[in-house]
Amino acid sequence: MAQVNDIAIIGAGPVGLFTVFACGQLDLRCHVFDSLEEVGGQCAALYPHKPIYDIPGYPHIEASVLVSRLQEQAAPFEPTYHLQRRIVSLRGQDDYLVLGDEAGKEMAFKAVILAVGGGAFVPNKPPISNLAVFEDKSVFYRVTDPARFVGKKVVICGGGDSAVDWACALADKADVYVVHRRDKFRATPAMVKKLHDLHDRKKLTLVTPYMLESLDGDKDGTLKRVGVKTLKGDTKSLDADYVLAFFGLVSQLGPVRDWGLALKDNDVWVEPTTMATSKARVFAVGDSAGYDNKLNLILCGFSEASLAAQQIYRLLHAGKAPRFQYSTAKGDPKTYKEKQAR
Amino acid sequence: MAQVNDIAIIGAGPVGLFTVFACGQLDLRCHVFDSLEEVGGQCAALYPHKPIYDIPGYPHIEASVLVSRLQEQAAPFEPTYHLQRRIVSLRGQDDYLVLGDEAGKEMAFKAVILAVGGGAFVPNKPPISNLAVFEDKSVFYRVTDPARFVGKKVVICGGGDSAVDWACALADKADVYVVHRRDKFRATPAMVKKLHDLHDRKKLTLVTPYMLESLDGDKDGTLKRVGVKTLKGDTKSLDADYVLAFFGLVSQLGPVRDWGLALKDNDVWVEPTTMATSKARVFAVGDSAGYDNKLNLILCGFSEASLAAQQIYRLLHAGKAPRFQYSTAKGDPKTYKEKQAR
Repeated sequence: MAQVNDIAIIGAGPVGLFTVFACGQLDLRCHVFDSLEEVGGQCAALYPHKPIYDIPGYPHIEASVLVSRLQEQAAPFEPTYHLQRRIVSLRGQDDYLVLGDEAGKEMAFKAVILAVGGGAFVPNKPPISNLAVFEDKSVFYRVTDPARFVGKKVVICGGGDSAVDWACALADKADVYVVHRRDKFRATPAMVKKLHDLHDRKKLTLVTPYMLESLDGDKDGTLKRVGVKTLKGDTKSLDADYVLAFFGLVSQLGPVRDWGLALKDNDVWVEPTTMATSKARVFAVGDSAGYDNKLNLILCGFSEASLAAQQIYRLLHAGKAPRFQYSTAKGDPKTYKEKQAR
Repeated sequence: MAQVNDIAIIGAGPVGLFTVFACGQLDLRCHVFDSLEEVGGQCAALYPHKPIYDIPGYPHIEASVLVSRLQEQAAPFEPTYHLQRRIVSLRGQDDYLVLGDEAGKEMAFKAVILAVGGGAFVPNKPPISNLAVFEDKSVFYRVTDPARFVGKKVVICGGGDSAVDWACALADKADVYVVHRRDKFRATPAMVKKLHDLHDRKKLTLVTPYMLESLDGDKDGTLKRVGVKTLKGDTKSLDADYVLAFFGLVSQLGPVRDWGLALKDNDVWVEPTTMATSKARVFAVGDSAGYDNKLNLILCGFSEASLAAQQIYRLLHAGKAPRFQYSTAKGDPKTYKEKQAR
């Protein structure tokens, strides 16, 4: 290896971004890898405009705003972002680690911090054999362009917040059918009430308790009809231009499972005050890290990032802890970095 | 005990305030006790206008602004604040705890969370034998009523921000002497310059390098003269009506030491994933909580508050964990509290 860099952070979600700051405060330079094309992890990819209420000091903040604030906070420490770059291998050497991406390119690091959340997020898909024909043409797992559905027959599947919210939002504009395997919906009570009101006023049609069973249309992905059935086996057919399938998301650790780390369920198991995994020089923070009583909250990940940075500092400085300084005493990262350079 | 309340939080610093939110999200109602007259702990009392750089999501934020944001975030959960109320006793009963204040008033709680930082803040006092005769009559450690000093001889002791700021503020209105053991003042440069200007223009008198040595006056607390001396032993006497002694604040765990909790140095020792102390139903978070590798960062205290709230929920619900919900799914605390009430 020509060069051994300081720290690799795998995952550019909110916790990964704050990890850059926590390491930077201890003069550790970071490279940040993410498979997505932008930073922010699920905050950016899944719910950019949703308000978050449990970030300390923010009574509410949009996920995308939080991401840009965290990026701004990390910026003085000049991280190198490697986006759309999925790390698939990790191997340990005597005193460094080697990461490899999908293209086989390798880089070496003194320590690696996994901030991969639950792993890559993918939507749960219904078990329908010809599903791929219609995906991204007439079957969608999220709404990016609501105008597409105006005046169309839209079958919305699922019983959670996404299904109920979009059913209510589209009821005025489209011919909406809501297919759910139970009569009860698991969404905010006010929205569930609205959904039933809209059904009673014939602004949309509830098709319960039914499950999506089949898709019927053309080879180019144009949908014509869907088949639904009850648990008892009763079936019916609905005319449809589009299907919105909201069966939730599932996250997968993926290649991380093969790196020889102690795992428990979908978590990388760590020591809760150092975030050290079972493998030397490898740490995990945020939703990807597991320990007893763990809470999958962004704010806990922030704390874990600080603990991991501290432990890595000790590791790289023969056990010596950094001199503790409050940020108020240390001053503005934007300027003290310059001061140090002088 | 007539009534057993949910949670007592001792300490209304930033971590104490966020603890209200963390508990509130799990439907636990909080009473918050603090010896100071306002919320915010040392953020409010020691450095309200200092920028903090390591609150995640805030590249910088003034301490006082952070405090008001945290208070706003806690408000929907309707905490009861008991300010200027110092808790001095804690005793355990079968299934609740009893807290007592200085006046002997008691209240009962299902659980208690210590968020006392380094302890209650008290002013550093000069080692003068008859000090108590004059305290709160002619010797003060903070200014609550500046009008008192108009036209009087005021000896201001100390070399930090408080001493310099008050010397400048009172120079026009009172006969001000500034006693400091060094020639240099440790305050904002602009104010130090102003202090020297006022001295040069004979608007106040710098008495340096001198230390306060003795107080002379009547038994009723009326002050007449103070004695000062140099390190070498040179002494002089100054006529004085009032002394303002600004020797900084010192924090002390104080009565907490006597509550039968396992301690280590100045920390209450806790289990790091539940924040449980050695005593049933008593938890500690923030700077007052100690465990291996602990970092005294506000952001770590926020995470600890969430872990403690979770553990208390389990304690009060026979070991059952609350249904985990992201705040984005749960919605705005301001409105879902109302929804629950309907």
